Amino acid sequence: MCIFCKIINGEIPSQTILEDENFLAFNDINPSKKVHILVIPKEHYDSFDVIPPKIMASMTEFIQKLVSKVGIKNSGYRLITNIGVDGGQEVKHLHFHVLGGEKVGKMVS
Amino acid sequence: MCIFCKIINGEIPSQTILEDENFLAFNDINPSKKVHILVIPKEHYDSFDVIPPKIMASMTEFIQKLVSKVGIKNSGYRLITNIGVDGGQEVKHLHFHVLGGEKVGKMVS
Repeated sequence: MCIFCKIINGEIPSQTILEDENFLAFNDINPSKKVHILVIPKEHYDSFDVIPPKIMASMTEFIQKLVSKVGIKNSGYRLITNIGVDGGQEVKHLHFHVLGGEKVGKMVS
Repeated sequence: MCIFCKIINGEIPSQTILEDENFLAFNDINPSKKVHILVIPKEHYDSFDVIPPKIMASMTEFIQKLVSKVGIKNSGYRLITNIGVDGGQEVKHLHFHVLGGEKVGKMVS
């Protein structure tokens, strides 16, 4: 079982920011900005590349709600997801990084 | 009219990679990786923050098709969208950066 599935199951602790039936948002353990939250679907999908579009629709709503809740909706944020080897994907369970709470750097690759 | 709406209208030239009724993918004029494509909805939305979830569903399908077409589906890629001031958003028309064709750097903020 992947590490994010273990977080969902409660086998590995995490600091939950927002949760509903289908998604979980929790703090990245190595934050690179003041706000650095990971958003994952509870159902396992390897990456964005295989996510069914309708799940991505619900995830969009969830993220929009999340940024309101943590107070970065108006100040702005960056959303990143990495796919596969060239994308530098570390955990093979789709996750979006939500970065904010301060200015993010130049868009880097 | 914003610069991306002008690209959609054909007032400003761009190098189209993939296009359908609702979305356009074109090369970034300042690529930061071998593959650096911008994906935009033809309808104007200021950012991810205001995109209707069902449009994001279609956009997901479009991006999944795009990465197959340009041959980076298996090698991997990074997907980024910037929202507002802290996110470093430059053009206020929702766009996703698709970066690949070589290894992207460490996830930076």
